[in-house]
Parts: sequence; C-alpha cells; structure tokens
Amino acid sequence: MADSKSGLTIREQLLQDVSPPPEHASVKITIVGVGQVGMACAYSIVNKCLVSELCLVDVDEKKLKGELMDLQHGLQFTSNLKLQASTNYDITAGSKLCILTAGVRQKEGEDRRNLLERNISIFKGIVPQLVKYSPDTVILVVSNPVDVMSYVTWKLSGLPPNRVFGSGTSLDSSRLRYFMSERLKVDVNSCHGHVIGEHGESSVVVWSGMNVAGVRLSDLNPDIGTEKDAERWLDIHRKVIDSATEVIKLKGYTSWAIGLCVSELTASILRNKKSIFALSTMAKGFQGIEEEIYISLPCALAENGVASVVQLRLTDTEKAKLHKSASELAELFKSAKL
Amino acid sequence: MADSKSGLTIREQLLQDVSPPPEHASVKITIVGVGQVGMACAYSIVNKCLVSELCLVDVDEKKLKGELMDLQHGLQFTSNLKLQASTNYDITAGSKLCILTAGVRQKEGEDRRNLLERNISIFKGIVPQLVKYSPDTVILVVSNPVDVMSYVTWKLSGLPPNRVFGSGTSLDSSRLRYFMSERLKVDVNSCHGHVIGEHGESSVVVWSGMNVAGVRLSDLNPDIGTEKDAERWLDIHRKVIDSATEVIKLKGYTSWAIGLCVSELTASILRNKKSIFALSTMAKGFQGIEEEIYISLPCALAENGVASVVQLRLTDTEKAKLHKSASELAELFKSAKL
Amino acid sequence: MADSKSGLTIREQLLQDVSPPPEHASVKITIVGVGQVGMACAYSIVNKCLVSELCLVDVDEKKLKGELMDLQHGLQFTSNLKLQASTNYDITAGSKLCILTAGVRQKEGEDRRNLLERNISIFKGIVPQLVKYSPDTVILVVSNPVDVMSYVTWKLSGLPPNRVFGSGTSLDSSRLRYFMSERLKVDVNSCHGHVIGEHGESSVVVWSGMNVAGVRLSDLNPDIGTEKDAERWLDIHRKVIDSATEVIKLKGYTSWAIGLCVSELTASILRNKKSIFALSTMAKGFQGIEEEIYISLPCALAENGVASVVQLRLTDTEKAKLHKSASELAELFKSAKL
Amino acid sequence: MADSKSGLTIREQLLQDVSPPPEHASVKITIVGVGQVGMACAYSIVNKCLVSELCLVDVDEKKLKGELMDLQHGLQFTSNLKLQASTNYDITAGSKLCILTAGVRQKEGEDRRNLLERNISIFKGIVPQLVKYSPDTVILVVSNPVDVMSYVTWKLSGLPPNRVFGSGTSLDSSRLRYFMSERLKVDVNSCHGHVIGEHGESSVVVWSGMNVAGVRLSDLNPDIGTEKDAERWLDIHRKVIDSATEVIKLKGYTSWAIGLCVSELTASILRNKKSIFALSTMAKGFQGIEEEIYISLPCALAENGVASVVQLRLTDTEKAKLHKSASELAELFKSAKL
Repeated sequence: MADSKSGLTIREQLLQDVSPPPEHASVKITIVGVGQVGMACAYSIVNKCLVSELCLVDVDEKKLKGELMDLQHGLQFTSNLKLQASTNYDITAGSKLCILTAGVRQKEGEDRRNLLERNISIFKGIVPQLVKYSPDTVILVVSNPVDVMSYVTWKLSGLPPNRVFGSGTSLDSSRLRYFMSERLKVDVNSCHGHVIGEHGESSVVVWSGMNVAGVRLSDLNPDIGTEKDAERWLDIHRKVIDSATEVIKLKGYTSWAIGLCVSELTASILRNKKSIFALSTMAKGFQGIEEEIYISLPCALAENGVASVVQLRLTDTEKAKLHKSASELAELFKSAKL
Repeated sequence: MADSKSGLTIREQLLQDVSPPPEHASVKITIVGVGQVGMACAYSIVNKCLVSELCLVDVDEKKLKGELMDLQHGLQFTSNLKLQASTNYDITAGSKLCILTAGVRQKEGEDRRNLLERNISIFKGIVPQLVKYSPDTVILVVSNPVDVMSYVTWKLSGLPPNRVFGSGTSLDSSRLRYFMSERLKVDVNSCHGHVIGEHGESSVVVWSGMNVAGVRLSDLNPDIGTEKDAERWLDIHRKVIDSATEVIKLKGYTSWAIGLCVSELTASILRNKKSIFALSTMAKGFQGIEEEIYISLPCALAENGVASVVQLRLTDTEKAKLHKSASELAELFKSAKL
Repeated sequence: MADSKSGLTIREQLLQDVSPPPEHASVKITIVGVGQVGMACAYSIVNKCLVSELCLVDVDEKKLKGELMDLQHGLQFTSNLKLQASTNYDITAGSKLCILTAGVRQKEGEDRRNLLERNISIFKGIVPQLVKYSPDTVILVVSNPVDVMSYVTWKLSGLPPNRVFGSGTSLDSSRLRYFMSERLKVDVNSCHGHVIGEHGESSVVVWSGMNVAGVRLSDLNPDIGTEKDAERWLDIHRKVIDSATEVIKLKGYTSWAIGLCVSELTASILRNKKSIFALSTMAKGFQGIEEEIYISLPCALAENGVASVVQLRLTDTEKAKLHKSASELAELFKSAKL
Repeated sequence: MADSKSGLTIREQLLQDVSPPPEHASVKITIVGVGQVGMACAYSIVNKCLVSELCLVDVDEKKLKGELMDLQHGLQFTSNLKLQASTNYDITAGSKLCILTAGVRQKEGEDRRNLLERNISIFKGIVPQLVKYSPDTVILVVSNPVDVMSYVTWKLSGLPPNRVFGSGTSLDSSRLRYFMSERLKVDVNSCHGHVIGEHGESSVVVWSGMNVAGVRLSDLNPDIGTEKDAERWLDIHRKVIDSATEVIKLKGYTSWAIGLCVSELTASILRNKKSIFALSTMAKGFQGIEEEIYISLPCALAENGVASVVQLRLTDTEKAKLHKSASELAELFKSAKL
C-alpha cells in the first residue's frame, strides 16, 4: 500500500474527477428567512426531494448556521442535495425560484401601516439582491401581510407580474377544504373549494363553487354560507379566518401547514405543472378590479410563475365581498411608500 | 330542490355510507412528545406519506392542539391521513409503532443521574399505557440519554427485546457520513460508515468499515482515525460528537436531522424492509458484552423491530473502545431504579 | 480468521437473528394475472413504494417466474419489498387487497356471452381460493367486462358488497380529464369530471359536474355535451369510449394508464384515504336503480373498500342514460350463470 | 349567461393567460426507442415524478402514438407532466438528458460484428440529431452491446466523454446485490457490491469489496468467489451473467429491472446527486487500461454526467479479469466502423 505514503489524500487516491462540477445545480431555489415558516418550507421541500440545490439566506448568522447543519446531518435519510446558507446573496445565483418568508412581526400596539413600513424597508434590502443574482427567477412571497408584500416585491423587482406572486389564500383554501373533509368524512383532496380575496379577515369563500365529485353543495343547500343555513357552514369560514390566530395562541406560531403548502407550490413551479391554487396575483382587469393591486384569485402555476388566472363566475354577493376586500387592500397599497 | 327542505344535512344528501369505518387504520403509529423533536418526526412522516393514522400524545394540551391543527390545515398538500392528538392514551389503540420523544432536559447544575430519575419517572407514566392499548406495538425510543431510556422502556414494557430499541447512533452515523461526503464530494448515500456504542461522548467510529464502493478508506490510509493521520479524519468524529451541542448552541435545539432519521426508521419498520441502521439494542451476547445493557450496534430493522444484529469485525482498538463505552453505560444502568 | 474454518456460513458469521420474521408482512397484496395489465399494475405499485409484500399468481408458471425475476433484479432501485410468485394460492395468505386482472380475450367471432361464460369459469377457480387464504381481503376487479366480473366476484366471494368492486370508469374518467386538460391547458388534476355507468360503449359523462376551480363548464356553455355545442366537447366522450380500442389498435394492448390508475386505487385503500373515484359497485338503491347490479358511481375508497357512494345530482338526460346503461348491463348479468 | 352566446370558447371564458408558456420545460428528457426497455424506463420515470417534460422518439409511428396515448390517459394518477412523441427529433430540443434504448436484436445465426454494424448504422441516424437539438445534453446509452454502443455514441456525438456513458453493469450490480440479499436476508440496499467490466459474459465481480455494514464478506470467508468456497458464492456471479438470458427465455424480454435502474440513474443526473453506480465510461487511464475503450467502473453520476471515477483497489485476480474483459472489448471496438 505504497500510496498511503505517497502524500496523496484519501480522496485523491479514491476518486479521479473527469469533469468540473456545474457552477450551480439546475434545480436551485432560495429561501429568504429561516424562522419557523422558512424552515418548515425548507424541511418539507427536502422531505419531498423537490430540488437539487437549496440556499438559505437570513441576517441571523448563528441561526442560519444551526439550521443548515441540522438539515445537512439528515441528508442520508432523503435524496442528496446541495445545501448552502449565508447572509450574503451571492450564493443564490442562478435560483429558479426564490421564496420570501422574512419580515418582522407586529409589535404590541403597533399599527398596520407602521408594520408595513418596517417590512418594506427589509424587502428593499432583499428583493434587488435576489434579482441581481437570479434575473430569471420567479418569486413566491409568503411574508405577511402577503398581498401588500407581494405587490411591494413586484415593484421592487422590476420583473413582469407573472413572475411575482404570494401564497395568498392558498392556505386559507386548504383550511376550508380540511374543514369540509371533516364534516363530509371524505379525503380532503376530494373536497373542492376556494377562498379568494385578501389573506385575512376580509377573505371570501366561493360558496357557489364548493363541490364534491362535481356536486355543488349549494345545490343541496342553497342557504349554504348564509346565516339562514341550519347547519351553519358559515362557521367554517370563521374557523378559516381564525385559524392562524388560534394556532399562534396555542403553539406560538404557524409553520407546518404553510410549509406543506409552499412545497406543493414549489412542485407546481419547478415541474411546470399548471396546477390551480388561490394565489396573490396582480388582479387589475380581473373580476372588475380596476386598481393595480395584488389579491388572491385561482391561478394556474407553472415554471414562469402565474400562467393563467381563472375567471370565476361569482354570485353578486361573492363579487361584492371581493370588491370590498379589494378596496380595503387598495388603501393599504397606497400607503406603501416605495 | 326539495331535499334542502327535507331537513337532511348536506352530507346526508351527498353521501350514502355503505360500510362502517374501520376501528383504526391498519398503518397507525403514535408519537409521544410534541416538542421540537417529536414534531420534526411527525412532519417528516407526514411529508413522506408513510402512515394512514398518526396519534400525538403529550401532557401539554394546548401545544398538542396547536400542533394538531397546524398539521391538519396542510393535509391537502400531502397524502390524506387521520390525525389525532390527546393527553389520553386511548386514542393510540392499535398502533403498529410508538415513537417516544418525551422527556425533560438537564437543568443547570443537575447531575446526569438526577436527570435520569426524572425521566424514568415520566416514562413510568407513558410506557405501560402504550403497551396497554397496543400490546403488539414496537417501540422506538428517541429521548435522551437514549441508551438508558431504551433499556428502561424495555423493562417497563414487558415486551421482548426485539420490540424495543432506540435511535441510538443512527444519527451519529448519518452525521459521520455527511462529513465523509463533504470531504469526498460524492452522494452521502454512497459514503458508508457506522458509529456504534453510546450515543454521546464515548461513541465509537468503526474506521475499519468506512468505505466508498467497497474501497476501505483504511486501505488507502491505514492511519485513518488516529492522531498520526495527516488528513485528520479523526476530527470528523469530534465533529460528530459535538454536532448536537453545536446545533443547540446555534439554534437552540436539534430537530430536522433526527426527524428525517426517525421517518426512515419508521419506513423500514412499517414496510418490513430489514434495512441496517446503528440502533440502541439489547447487546448482551454481542461483541463480548456480558451485561444486559442497551447500546448501539448495526441492526436490520423490520416489522417486528430488530430482526438481526450485525456481528462487526472490529479491530482491537475499536473493540476496546466499545467495551469502555459499554462499561460506562452499565454503571448508569445500574443506577436506573425501576 | 478462524471462523472461516469453523464451518459457519457467511450469514451465520455476519448476522445474529434476534426475532423470527413475521409470517407475512402486514401491508401485503396479491395480483392475479401477470399479463400486460397485471404487470403494469405491479410495476406502478413497486415504483410508488406502496406495499411491503407483493404476490403474483397466474397459471403460466414460466411467465410468472420471468416477471418475478425481472422485478426482483431491480429492487435496489426502489424501496425493498418481498416479492413472491406462484401458481398456488397459499402464498397469498393474509393479503389486505387482491387485484384481479386475469381473464381471456374475446376470440374472433365469439359473442359476448360466450366470452363471459369462459371468464366466469376462470374466476370460479380464483375467487374462492383468494377468500380462503385472505378472508379479510378487499377485492379490486380489473378484468373485463369489469362490471359483470365485479358482480361475479362478489357472488363467488361471499364477501359484503363494500369489499368487492371494480376499477369501472375510473380510467374513463381520467381519460376524460386528460382531454379536458389538453383543451384547457391546465393540470389534469385541476380538471374535474366523472364518467359513470358501464365501462364501455354506454358510459355516461356527467357534463353537469365538469368544472375547473368550481366553475362549471356547463355554466359557460349550456350546450356542452350536446350536438348543439359549436366546440364539440361531445367529441371527447367519443374519444374516451374509443380510447381502449384505439390504443389496442396502435400498440396491441392497454397497460400504462390502467396500471397508474390501479396503483392510486391501491394507495387509497391501503392508506384508508377515502379518495373519490368512479368505481363499479353494487348500485341497487342508488340513482333509482332497482336491480342488484354492479355499475360505476363515484365512491369514497378506504381500507374496507367502498366506504360511501356519492349521490350525484344528475340532469334528466344523464339519469336516463345511466338507466339505459344499467338496463343493458342487467341483461348481461342475468345471463351470468354462477 | 350572455357569454355563451358571445362566441367565446369555454377556455376563453374560463382562463385568462398572463404569460406565454416556456418554450420547453426546464426538466426535459428524451427517450429514443419505445420497445419494452424504453417504455419500462419511461413508465418508471413517470411513476417517480422525475421530469416535467418527456419526449419519446422512434421510427414506428403507430407504436409511438399508442404508447404516448396510454401514458397520457394515466396522468391524473401521477404528477402532471408534458408528454410528446414523434418520429422527428425537433420535439426533443432542450433535453437535459437523452436515453438511448433503440437498436435491433441479434438475428438467428448473425455474428456479433454484423449486429454491431447494423446498430451503428441506426445510431448514425439518432445521435447527431439529438446533439443538434440539445447541444448541452448528457446521453445515457442502454442499447446493447452497451459498452460498444456507448463508445460509438461518444464518437458520433462530439461531446466530452463525461457527457456520454452507458448503463453498463449497474444492472448486473443490482442483480448481484439482490442475490446477496436473498442469501443474507437483509435489505438489498444494505447489501453492497459491484460488478464491473463488460456488461456480459466477461463481467467481473469485485469480491474484495462486497460488504454489509462495512463487514467484508471476504474477511469472513477468504475463499468467496472461488471454486474452493463451500457455500458457492461464485454461483451468484453465474446467475448474474445468466439473468438476462434466463428472463428472456421465460418472458420474452427484460424490462422492469432496467427501467427501475434507468430511473434512478436519471434521478442522480437531474438532481445532481453524485450517487455511485457502475457505468460504462471512457476508461483510458483507469486500472491500467491503456486503450480508448468504454467499460464499466463505479462512477459518481451528476448533472454533467460522469463527475468522477472510483479508483477501486482490485486484487490481482480481479485486475486480470478486468484486463481480459477490456481486451475482448477492445477487439470489438476496433471493428466498429464509424
């Protein structure tokens, strides 16, 4: 065994490289923010083997390193991928998708606009950096208030609107569908329905579209979604709206559901699937919305981001609610100084 | 639409049941403890679609409910399964596998034995309950100190030793393999090696077995794992030992790696795969160990738990280290009052 | 290395068994018939890692052995499972699910009833054997004519009707949805619609339920599915009906689509998911059907087979077509001598 | 419902496109040849959800269309992807990976060189077309004799050698490992070993590297792989060599194992995993091989094809066998007129 005395390292003895590694893997994504939400997204994506390179960016160097190591130590138990983490955006070069989960939480007593100002200021430090290193990326905004932050990201990015969108009411919709499945006792994936509008208090359930196997619940009970309904399906909208607050009260934050949601959005993007989700998108021209705002509508999601928007047939009541939701947002958008 | 006036609920109109639901799904598991480790295990298992029923048990009712809701809200984005959570063990009836992640952390200044006492006391409230409701279960212990807690669980359970085992050094091994892959720049799954012995400071790297494609690293460099090795592969053992402490220092706890690890152990059990992992098992009679202790050795893991133990060909140095690790543990075991 | 002279085998030296293997894995299924359909089902199930034990049964011993070996040789590239094949049913003991793909094809000039006689005679040799070795199994019939063969299987099995069902129009539905997605250019999984009734010429498209994101296509074009429709959506029903014939003409048989379909049905059963598929089920009492026949309706599929049947709101036209389909089948059923 | 009279199609009413679709999906691959092998590869890749666009190319237009339709009809039951098939290579533009399974079979009485001539002639019509439309592709050759055809493809392609390689003995290795697992009764993925050299009669088992959990079988029985071994492990090499012939005799062709193998190679390429497989690669400079030949050695497989070659420590016997295998191939290579 002369080689061991040859001064060659084990790797030099073991492996002969025949081609230089690619600069970056072609299925590369970046997650900005390694809080509970960012890490639940990362973990779900790693578990589902969706990417070959994952970059984490945050300002908290210590946390960043801890999360990176914790993921790396488990790589044997999933499909191998390259994991990187840095406070510097240069590692993100060539990302196909950037997921924004960064942002500050509301301080006690802080008003919504002040919170918005602070988050806009943070995004000014993030979005141009992402676009600089990955000019062809699409950007998925998860940070709250998601509709405004998606709009802000779009403006800061200089990208076409299809390339920037927010998770919006995709999670509200999955909550709605879970509550449906609980009542109907069938697979949540066989319970269909969408929540649209603002991700928050003024969100709109499209009762007229809720169905199982194409059977509209509103055909079985025309009162569904109203106060007149003896079964009080309306209550599940309340539960959807209160879900985040309730979970935060109980465990301190929400993470798992949004992580599962984001990994499926990621799959639809990276695999160019054109699956339909309720996403926060540039809504001008849809459903009679005239302002340049971001609000959630069902969208087909593909490699270039939002490929198409579904033109829902809303009832008058639903449309009125959507417009109210839109107006409330429009006010907030105006106050977003960019 | 007369039906809506018939007083029938939407479900009654929509679905006609033709068979009663099974008492519990046949691929049912329970996780005890919904801390960071327990939930990372649960989330990885949910992402990998490994079970049809998952029960969470803990004493913290609030946290339990929050975690349950957060998982349920994301079910649309994975394969449907039944999720339950309770402080009461009756929901766990019929579990094929119970994963124990409960336990208290070391208080500042607390000595190891005192910590042990406290954890034993907790397990006395858990293990008999699990066995009562699922007499045919296998039990995977993740709580630390994992070797002692596995032994304690075995004693408390009254089950045959193959049915009770700990995650042991399966995670240390994956950390070792990750560091190998970092040095060798090949897939962690093509880097082979095992850490055995105590999960902790006295763990033993089986340098003589480390290989890539069947090429033993010790054939390339006989000094590997010793102080004489110029490349200092020994340092990666140090990194393995320090990993948990380091990650805890950086992010406050470890979660992702152990979660990924446990979900793969779960897959090997539920699918009866007989994959080999270093697990904390009843080691009497193996490698010259004479005491009735639990310590990690490579085991083939199947539906009935540990199916076989691999009889490693250790070098004298490795065997001496394993015996030292065993003796240290034996002392601790004696102090475990059951 | 004294051991090698000890007369011990490598296995005896390498592994010490600590527990006897389970009699059979708990997630065990059987496929009867290893023709193109049976093997596409088996291969899809193996690729999707759905089971821990798979038995193949056929009368052709040679083919059986070849297919078994070919699967076994690839096990490294999927999740490990136990594969068995035999002409004898004893290997199937303890199956959770049996999938029937056996049967003869129509001879040139043979009439349908004669074909049926021959297939019934074959099933008489299969079904009682399956039930004998796996009294708690559910049975999924894929063999054609699927509605009659499901009914025959039910009668021969002595099982409750929920435990016996046929793949029915689940494949017709997926073809319909593929053609929808081709026209609409969105993910097939976001295109919703069901084909019900007989799996064959008299199948019924539920035009009134076809929707994307809850938007009924019939609300956009009330003429859909009729001759009056300028876009001729009706043509995709023709394509659905002709699909099998067309594929058989082009490649000799159909296999991939039915294999993918059956593996998803299998997942819904083994994971107790209650997903909704159009399945051939005992239809007496549904949609005004008074005869004891098997015909396809949307069903929630779980561990015990058909858990619930969806009570569709059919238009008069659709209901008339379904009844016509049912009557035609009823005639055939009567001729099935058991 | 004025719209339905507006002359707009259902799609125009339903969906508003906001961005043009990408020219081709970024995870796009091509399979040339839709025989049993090509289709088993395609089906495994579709089942494992590895790509977003899959092109099939063949000269048999009818078969091509039949296979395409059969896959499309099942898309509901897997992750959505774009499927195309054509006799014309223009559909393959932008492929990341091209898999070659085309080729003719040996005629009765035909000698090996004549067969080779015919296959070279076929590849002359394929390879330049692939490279023309996808200049950045990597090419995986599956057609037999795989070593020569890989070399031929390399020469015809003008690509660097890392970008062209053959499935080689990756399948022989998985067969070896299956037979190991059958004898040892542990997961095939915990049984390690490689077959190298020619894919065929003169292949070489690296007995010195066969191990479980790092325990070399040759340490337990130094006679392993020789005629002196009482357990006759040598017989499993015979079984590996005879596997293809045996399966062909029994079922007419091999398909499932090579399909599973190719889908894992595909995953390692598209996800840039650097997993190690025995692949047919340009071997000049390795193991003392001086000729420019393709032969199988363990390689780390990544996005750019073969990233590194493992420099095995062969015993003298193993090296001699490899050189004999290489010489036999070199002769054949010389006869390959390009």
